[in-house]
Amino acid sequence: MNQAVSHAAPHAEPTAVAHDIPDTPADLNQAVLIALDWGTSSLRAYAFDAQGRALAVRSLPWGIMKLPRAAAEGGFDAAFEAACGDWLDARPTLPLIACGMVGSAQGWVEAPYIDTPADANRLASSLAEVRTQRGPVLRIVPGVLERGTLPNVMRGEETQILGAMLEAGPGAQDAAPRKTLVGLPGSHAKWAIVEGRSIERFHTFMTGEAFAALRDHTILGRTMRTPDVPDTEAFLRGVSVARGAWDAGLLATIFSTRALGLTGQLDAAQQPDYLSGLLIGHEIAGLEKLLEREGATWASQPVLLIGDAKLVERYRLVLAHFGCTHARTVQNATERGLWQIASQAGLVAQA
Amino acid sequence: MNQAVSHAAPHAEPTAVAHDIPDTPADLNQAVLIALDWGTSSLRAYAFDAQGRALAVRSLPWGIMKLPRAAAEGGFDAAFEAACGDWLDARPTLPLIACGMVGSAQGWVEAPYIDTPADANRLASSLAEVRTQRGPVLRIVPGVLERGTLPNVMRGEETQILGAMLEAGPGAQDAAPRKTLVGLPGSHAKWAIVEGRSIERFHTFMTGEAFAALRDHTILGRTMRTPDVPDTEAFLRGVSVARGAWDAGLLATIFSTRALGLTGQLDAAQQPDYLSGLLIGHEIAGLEKLLEREGATWASQPVLLIGDAKLVERYRLVLAHFGCTHARTVQNATERGLWQIASQAGLVAQA
Repeated sequence: MNQAVSHAAPHAEPTAVAHDIPDTPADLNQAVLIALDWGTSSLRAYAFDAQGRALAVRSLPWGIMKLPRAAAEGGFDAAFEAACGDWLDARPTLPLIACGMVGSAQGWVEAPYIDTPADANRLASSLAEVRTQRGPVLRIVPGVLERGTLPNVMRGEETQILGAMLEAGPGAQDAAPRKTLVGLPGSHAKWAIVEGRSIERFHTFMTGEAFAALRDHTILGRTMRTPDVPDTEAFLRGVSVARGAWDAGLLATIFSTRALGLTGQLDAAQQPDYLSGLLIGHEIAGLEKLLEREGATWASQPVLLIGDAKLVERYRLVLAHFGCTHARTVQNATERGLWQIASQAGLVAQA
Repeated sequence: MNQAVSHAAPHAEPTAVAHDIPDTPADLNQAVLIALDWGTSSLRAYAFDAQGRALAVRSLPWGIMKLPRAAAEGGFDAAFEAACGDWLDARPTLPLIACGMVGSAQGWVEAPYIDTPADANRLASSLAEVRTQRGPVLRIVPGVLERGTLPNVMRGEETQILGAMLEAGPGAQDAAPRKTLVGLPGSHAKWAIVEGRSIERFHTFMTGEAFAALRDHTILGRTMRTPDVPDTEAFLRGVSVARGAWDAGLLATIFSTRALGLTGQLDAAQQPDYLSGLLIGHEIAGLEKLLEREGATWASQPVLLIGDAKLVERYRLVLAHFGCTHARTVQNATERGLWQIASQAGLVAQA
């Protein structure tokens, strides 16, 4: 789920792991679950205690497209062993769960999409299974598909979204079914409408990858220079232009990056952040239209954000520009989601 | 002005020249003007008679970024000589005019932009001049700049637009100032609001270049296969999705190219045309919003199209989908525009 994030400078880093969690559990006897967040470009392994707290987390560069050796030559098993083989040597019967692209058609085993609406119960009852070389079965969380004229898929984000709903605290848990908007900025930003604890609908905005393609492979990049520090003023200028573009859309505004440069109104070092602001601004303007269809307004709409801290901060700026000042940033969404689904599947005793 | 056109398959070719015009005039004594359409990637030379008819046209691959030798080593003169040196040997005093990127900062000499509103008279009174190595002065049509929050520039298209207004016939000439929408599909599609014969406002949609960047440099291209013949049904499906996307915008719809593929609803060979339809659909949807701001509707709005025949045909399909069935395709816009500006500048006797 953690695809390369590529919005403007400086490049965002993957979500940081809290520094106080070791990469090997102090006491493996406390572990009750091993959970893997296994995406395209990275692999992260957690050992959880009976309260769902991470005893250890280990990060490896072995996403499914970057395995230590070819998949046909045991690449998945090799990465898996590096991630948690020593933990399993000590505790061979620990249950195993994974989410992310490891369950895609290019993954270890395909975990077919389940249709929306999707909650932890439905995900937990649709886990795929793959037998590891050492014996134990690894269960893999399926992705989610929303059918329709404009179909959408997610894989990995469903786990984060459900985890975020828990992490958001008792209020979010206790409330009667109520719409929450959960945003996951990134290469393919996801925005999900969650009712109660169920993912009802979602949208994919290809903002990050479109930004990279426009910057690196169109005329817009030719006059750009990456600034030493992000230029927030230029970024917000882009947001403002996108918001004020009379719904003419992205294709009508991005050339202004060049036109403002040609006319001496935007320095080379301002252009990357300006373009980033334009794109994220168009994303949030489009999201506003989708909210209107839901009968919601920013004021009435709880908003949670998950992801890289710097990128989330950029999104908070844009949301505030659109009148949404109450977006909450959620930490540890993946861990919470993996734990919740494992609990629901009976892999660990429910708290 | 003729940037590489890159919408879907098959790739569009530069506007064809009528086959009955030779590349050397049958009788150079009839020539009264040599005019050059000199863009980034190609150079075209015309010899006109006193009625503004092309006696000859010669096409060369020597756009300003592809000169036969470096600019500092006389590259512009070399290309110029190849284009019309023999004509000038026979008729050394013929007046010379050019339009396009040859007047940009990277061109032979910079012809600074003039501000909107721009008509033939204002363009003709702002010609830049460069002395050729053989002696005569070449005059270069300036580009046009629209200032504002969302500034826009054009260079080359201004000549085509003015030419199109002439070519559109007596009706367009005689009418009192009336808004005409002139579209130039391409890498950077231009849409100009022309009142009478004056370019009042214009917009740049980076549709063609964005398409190429998304196809060639994002995940969307990975599952695509170029079809043997364009798939009009897939194209129109993309148009329909873009139009029905509740104004959520391009970033929210393009991922459907992949999602439809993953769910078996869009074959690999349909995906390029589907994406092209999405992008052009978003362009025309955005243009519709801009028209609304002008107080215009498709029904009330004369529309002219200039450009590559296949691409223009695609745009006609999209316009029809939006309810505009009366768009007229205009031929020979560049020649007419060059002739008109030369006439206005007194380089040739006015007809």
